[in-house]
Amino acid sequence: MRLHLVTLTTDFGPGSHYVAALKGVILSLNPDADILDLSHAILPQQIAHGAFFLAQVVRYFPPDAVHLAVVDPGVGTDRGLIYARMAHQHFLAPDNGLLSWVARRSPPGSIITLRDPAYWRAEVSATFHARDILAPVAAHLTLGLDPTKLGPPQTDLVRLPWPEPRRHNDSIEGVILFEDSFGNLITNLDRDALQAIPLTEAHVELPSGTRLNLLRTYADAPPGTPLALIGSTGHLELAVAGGSAAKTLGLCPGDAVLVRSAAVKSRIS
Amino acid sequence: MRLHLVTLTTDFGPGSHYVAALKGVILSLNPDADILDLSHAILPQQIAHGAFFLAQVVRYFPPDAVHLAVVDPGVGTDRGLIYARMAHQHFLAPDNGLLSWVARRSPPGSIITLRDPAYWRAEVSATFHARDILAPVAAHLTLGLDPTKLGPPQTDLVRLPWPEPRRHNDSIEGVILFEDSFGNLITNLDRDALQAIPLTEAHVELPSGTRLNLLRTYADAPPGTPLALIGSTGHLELAVAGGSAAKTLGLCPGDAVLVRSAAVKSRIS
Amino acid sequence: MRLHLVTLTTDFGPGSHYVAALKGVILSLNPDADILDLSHAILPQQIAHGAFFLAQVVRYFPPDAVHLAVVDPGVGTDRGLIYARMAHQHFLAPDNGLLSWVARRSPPGSIITLRDPAYWRAEVSATFHARDILAPVAAHLTLGLDPTKLGPPQTDLVRLPWPEPRRHNDSIEGVILFEDSFGNLITNLDRDALQAIPLTEAHVELPSGTRLNLLRTYADAPPGTPLALIGSTGHLELAVAGGSAAKTLGLCPGDAVLVRSAAVKSRIS
Repeated sequence: MRLHLVTLTTDFGPGSHYVAALKGVILSLNPDADILDLSHAILPQQIAHGAFFLAQVVRYFPPDAVHLAVVDPGVGTDRGLIYARMAHQHFLAPDNGLLSWVARRSPPGSIITLRDPAYWRAEVSATFHARDILAPVAAHLTLGLDPTKLGPPQTDLVRLPWPEPRRHNDSIEGVILFEDSFGNLITNLDRDALQAIPLTEAHVELPSGTRLNLLRTYADAPPGTPLALIGSTGHLELAVAGGSAAKTLGLCPGDAVLVRSAAVKSRIS
Repeated sequence: MRLHLVTLTTDFGPGSHYVAALKGVILSLNPDADILDLSHAILPQQIAHGAFFLAQVVRYFPPDAVHLAVVDPGVGTDRGLIYARMAHQHFLAPDNGLLSWVARRSPPGSIITLRDPAYWRAEVSATFHARDILAPVAAHLTLGLDPTKLGPPQTDLVRLPWPEPRRHNDSIEGVILFEDSFGNLITNLDRDALQAIPLTEAHVELPSGTRLNLLRTYADAPPGTPLALIGSTGHLELAVAGGSAAKTLGLCPGDAVLVRSAAVKSRIS
Repeated sequence: MRLHLVTLTTDFGPGSHYVAALKGVILSLNPDADILDLSHAILPQQIAHGAFFLAQVVRYFPPDAVHLAVVDPGVGTDRGLIYARMAHQHFLAPDNGLLSWVARRSPPGSIITLRDPAYWRAEVSATFHARDILAPVAAHLTLGLDPTKLGPPQTDLVRLPWPEPRRHNDSIEGVILFEDSFGNLITNLDRDALQAIPLTEAHVELPSGTRLNLLRTYADAPPGTPLALIGSTGHLELAVAGGSAAKTLGLCPGDAVLVRSAAVKSRIS
């Protein structure tokens, strides 16, 4: 096993000196490592945002990629740092829920508590374990280190609760999870959750009472018109053709959405 | 022919999960691909911005680079996706004008409609053709695939009109195209357009009547002073030494600028 | 000597076409160069910000990395461009102070004025020396060029004054240098400066009279509570657990902070 690819996902901010430090530490130990930025724009200290991001993207990566992920408000406390083998890939992260939605899709094959300082920087700060522990461990993995050397196994990792959709008679109630860079609002309603409803006859209802048509793609609505669709993540999302749903609809993460079967609806009302 | 370099230019936003998905798809097909971020900060859905960006930068790249570019408000409609060979390089993009200003400088050698799903992801979403079609095709090109396998040739690509300067007796009228990250305002007036005017005796007039001197570099004016110069893109731009021309002058893309020959001007007035 | 790694640190803005041009120029000369983005978010034209960034990060990089750094408000004037060998690494930058705080930690082994146009682009613009001079020189260095070929040696480089802490009887007075992406406020007080004070008995005083406890990590204070700590840079910083110190405290770069020994303080007051 010889790996070279290390991806980085952090809330450090694009161009932050914290990101540059990670890259330097990795390259100092393995000059042949291929470092790939996934995101440094995870919302600061929002573990759930990082967890959702990772769950969306790691499915596209090749086996044995090393993913280093950091959203770590508890750095320096007794929260652990872990290695996890999931989806045929390697993950390094604080054990604070950041990996929980990858683990929800792809149950971990092994989880290891990072314990052996032999693979860390000599001096470990209280506030930057990503640089002092995760980055050197990632470099060692790309050099072929057996992950079992990193520390003792642990049985599970910290898991954030997934916001489960609520099923009603004629509808499914979900919640907006995240706003993407276009202002599209992505919900927790994925294809599995929506199976109960015949989507060809459904529409979406917002808390304001507004109804949105469920369409196939953004351009199926006239410019400026709000719509709903099953986005590329497989989740229901709210969008505005040529605009921002977040701004137009005045909604944000945490707000509820309802998918209602039109057939059933007309029967009731 | 064996290529490895794939550049990415998108309006997905820095750190967006859409960008990470592209990278994963490419590396899954060719782990040796060298992925290079050009920009993920193209203004959302503004095809002209992406077209200008590409026209500015591809001239610096080595032959046979594969450029994947995405600004795609019409995703999922019947707009095509194309491969184009231009400037000795390879381009993959929606056929919506995004490549038109590269093509204006470097007429395409061949243009191919992406048609053969053998080189796509097995499942193609309605809203993310960059991930499902362009990224795998880019990876196949880096593995040496003959572009003619991608689909049938087409005779031309969709072209955005270039905002042509208007020539008057003693002046040339242009328009502000874009604001860069320093607040410099870049116009459509390039060296060719300005040939008619002796620049050593010219000044720039703004809609407000303000006149700007045409200088050689930013620091040729005192701090805070607005000026005009031929920027590194070869285009006339408005700048403020040590500040933002956009803020100081209150101008934005679409506003007019006039380059007037001082010699002629004094003769007339 | 054969190098491949070229890092980029600029104030061009993430996704700017200026960055893409640098990358193209380097790869055109050496397709095997490994280009690594450190930051394109240095505050526009703020040389001190770039100087601090570089001083924080280059210590983590492997020997012989080539660092290309650009914050260049004086581009096109008679300010020089230099190569410097420092900390076993290679630096290319305008000679305007940008390298001065790396040089403060790691005195330059050699400094060379970039003079020989044989290693530049054929046409050199007045406003983009990074593209036309620094990028091709960086590429030549990765191809093994002896730096002494670049031009004549010079004895020193332009140095920004480091804001030295002021030592009082029972306290040390420092100044806020920068705000990071979390809103943490990083000061000029590093471990060396703070040696005079027994930190276990010290607290931090702000201009408003507010006192902050000096803790070990962010999570040692309740959420929303301001605190001080020695951050991962080795500098005293002000933080708010789970929030932004810059917003909560209403402070910004240039504001003073005082570290006072509690023992001495109680004796005096």
